[in-house]
Amino acid sequence: MTEKKNIAIMGAGLVGSLLSLYLAKRGHKVDLYERRPDLRRNTVDGGRSINLALSDRGWRALKGIGIEEQVRQVAIPMHGRMMHDEQGKLTFQPYGKEGQSIFSVSRGGLNAALMDVSEPDPNITYHFNRQATDVNLRTNQVQLLNLDTQGTETIQPDLLFGADGAFSVVRGAMQKTERFNYEQSYLEYGYKELSIPAAPGGGWAIEKNALHIWPRGNYMMIALPNIDGSFTCTLFFPYEGERSFAAIKTENDLLRFFGEVFPDAVPLMPELAKEYFENPVGSLVTIKCFPWSYGGKSLLIGDACHAVVPFYGQGMNAGFEDISVLNQMLDSFEGDDWEALFEAFERRRKPDADAIAELAVLNFIEMRDKVADPRFLLRKKIEAKITEQYPDRWSTLYSMVTFSDLPYSYALETGRKQDKIMRKVMKHIQSIEDYHKPEVQRLLEKQLVKKEKLKKYKTEESL
Amino acid sequence: MTEKKNIAIMGAGLVGSLLSLYLAKRGHKVDLYERRPDLRRNTVDGGRSINLALSDRGWRALKGIGIEEQVRQVAIPMHGRMMHDEQGKLTFQPYGKEGQSIFSVSRGGLNAALMDVSEPDPNITYHFNRQATDVNLRTNQVQLLNLDTQGTETIQPDLLFGADGAFSVVRGAMQKTERFNYEQSYLEYGYKELSIPAAPGGGWAIEKNALHIWPRGNYMMIALPNIDGSFTCTLFFPYEGERSFAAIKTENDLLRFFGEVFPDAVPLMPELAKEYFENPVGSLVTIKCFPWSYGGKSLLIGDACHAVVPFYGQGMNAGFEDISVLNQMLDSFEGDDWEALFEAFERRRKPDADAIAELAVLNFIEMRDKVADPRFLLRKKIEAKITEQYPDRWSTLYSMVTFSDLPYSYALETGRKQDKIMRKVMKHIQSIEDYHKPEVQRLLEKQLVKKEKLKKYKTEESL
Repeated sequence: MTEKKNIAIMGAGLVGSLLSLYLAKRGHKVDLYERRPDLRRNTVDGGRSINLALSDRGWRALKGIGIEEQVRQVAIPMHGRMMHDEQGKLTFQPYGKEGQSIFSVSRGGLNAALMDVSEPDPNITYHFNRQATDVNLRTNQVQLLNLDTQGTETIQPDLLFGADGAFSVVRGAMQKTERFNYEQSYLEYGYKELSIPAAPGGGWAIEKNALHIWPRGNYMMIALPNIDGSFTCTLFFPYEGERSFAAIKTENDLLRFFGEVFPDAVPLMPELAKEYFENPVGSLVTIKCFPWSYGGKSLLIGDACHAVVPFYGQGMNAGFEDISVLNQMLDSFEGDDWEALFEAFERRRKPDADAIAELAVLNFIEMRDKVADPRFLLRKKIEAKITEQYPDRWSTLYSMVTFSDLPYSYALETGRKQDKIMRKVMKHIQSIEDYHKPEVQRLLEKQLVKKEKLKKYKTEESL
Repeated sequence: MTEKKNIAIMGAGLVGSLLSLYLAKRGHKVDLYERRPDLRRNTVDGGRSINLALSDRGWRALKGIGIEEQVRQVAIPMHGRMMHDEQGKLTFQPYGKEGQSIFSVSRGGLNAALMDVSEPDPNITYHFNRQATDVNLRTNQVQLLNLDTQGTETIQPDLLFGADGAFSVVRGAMQKTERFNYEQSYLEYGYKELSIPAAPGGGWAIEKNALHIWPRGNYMMIALPNIDGSFTCTLFFPYEGERSFAAIKTENDLLRFFGEVFPDAVPLMPELAKEYFENPVGSLVTIKCFPWSYGGKSLLIGDACHAVVPFYGQGMNAGFEDISVLNQMLDSFEGDDWEALFEAFERRRKPDADAIAELAVLNFIEMRDKVADPRFLLRKKIEAKITEQYPDRWSTLYSMVTFSDLPYSYALETGRKQDKIMRKVMKHIQSIEDYHKPEVQRLLEKQLVKKEKLKKYKTEESL
């Protein structure tokens, strides 16, 4: 049996709140410290996106602690992408097979639900309005400023988890240690949140069960449905340049631009100008670091060690998967060597964190640019055909990332191999019917069956 | 004419001192602020390597300000690598063509020489024992702690240059600005400086005009000559593992290890154990960031914006080349738009800084591992043959980096192309005589002449 610990989690966001449940279930005493006030009793200002796409990896972590059904009540399935072209013409592209969806959930709603489930647990205590001001990694002492009383508090947990997001204070302390590898990289794009309110008679003004995209080459707008009938729109737009946040200075600039490039959206956005000029421009950062732990006493988790850009909808899902992986390792953890455990965790998880960071940036290019390209759409249809014909040998990259628990690093590597094959295949394809041409079929047979057999044979031979 | 400015340079190391000369020559008033005491009057402790390899890019910057000859007096030419195997057997590999060398110089000696040349200039003032404690990038105010008086001083130059090295305080201020891209990555290797004293009768105990390498697979020792007859040795060694700094705990461990793997060096190192256990282990960091400037008021230069690992001997040379490039841009600079100038500089120089960072890491693998491989040495000889036969079409990667002013990014890219060609060529090579085989000659003709012609033709056609 592993000794029960006093554990502090910095940050009571999505990852921190869910992690508390998993740790408390094992009998540890968990205190969560959150800089913001309790979002269930206060309107907490954002700086963070309002809704998120929950997919299989996230669901698995929710299911593992028995709260899947509660969340499902407030999650809206999105079966595919709905593309809006410059004439307002719609094209639908399913995400996966029949019945596979990603789900739009409210960040605040999900966070509140996780708090509601965890707070009654006698082993879990939430402390709001606590700002970490100093972390001593050697002693595990954390100085907290109580924002209610302005007094200072000191805690010294046995174990400290940094679930405090992209600008993590715990990671800040690690950054001052010897040989800490760290990278922050920003896209030349920012984002701004806008909205489409519920239709006048109630309900959703555009297709409810889809993730809407207005792809426009080097920029785009997307919209995700909310349960109140509204959509949250996000404009991803260059900071500088001819068409950019810098170039739109007046309401006239804004309306002319939107009218030209998002004509079908404008009539649905009555508050467009107000929201555009009042809402901040958010930045898009990727954060990588290593190691994630210090001395077996502190461990980073979620965005704190691997913040990604939002274009694969995997930020929260990757953070939740961290918890699933850690939990799985705790299943076979005996004794008290947390240092070895944390080191095994960071070694296992780092390649996958790096992979989803790369995939997220690549998917931005796909979403803003390629999804409007007929050749790209044809290729997607051909890939669907291949998946149908070779269900055991072909799963699309999107499916591996979104609808499986295959490691992100495996998905990225397999996606690269598939891309090479698809380049060869697409040379023979002008229309969907060409899929049945003998040369296409021979090529697929060679790439998917014969090469695999050869590889298998070689592997066996070398054993 | 450009208006004369009050310029502050943070850091009076090699880059800062040389930069002051170039700026003062243009009539600007330059103040240098250095945390350390004046190294001409004090023994300054290191934490930094004792000697450095000066090559063409560095010489060019020294020549540009007319101090090449002074430095040449105290520089020792190294014509090639002298490899020491585990039996003490020597193999010499020239760096370039007849007469081409890199030069071993003392960091302290070179720095003192630069100070001696610049200090008499009425436009240049050195301020030692000044530690920058805060930089306000908007106002360009810098708080300095005077380490002599413990008093605080505030300066507010028109322009601020951050030549303050890998742990730059000026860059630290930039890191707190919006959307600053930053990366620090450490190798899993550290280094320790050791020494071979002058031979008993005076003079050098091993070949003076060479860079000595004891390559041992995943680690190595190197030695560079000093003008007093001694050599400074540097052991590059893993932090952890079977053979590592962590594994050597006692004098016995040390002597057994050195006796086994560096047997010819041990008798030349009478102070080995003392130096090993007294000298610190240095870390090996690569630092990348972008942008390098802020608001046309401050600019990073040298290690402050692109610290590299030392294995290509290009850290100082790259910093000096920054100055040459900036100086060249100042030649055609009119008016007062320093923001545009700094932005043009960082855009031009960033790809080359990234390239030398990558090359430096790659060269570590070559030095510690490949130089001991007979196939690798054969390949080097074949490359020399190609250079001889096609002097206008082939220059080795090492030569492009070390003996030219071709951009580092061009050298890296060309090196990659050459690597592909060499893989093809080496398939036909078992000995140096095979170079004259018809298939080798045909292959080179095809790769170096026909393909080039085709490319040229295509380029002309597309114009």
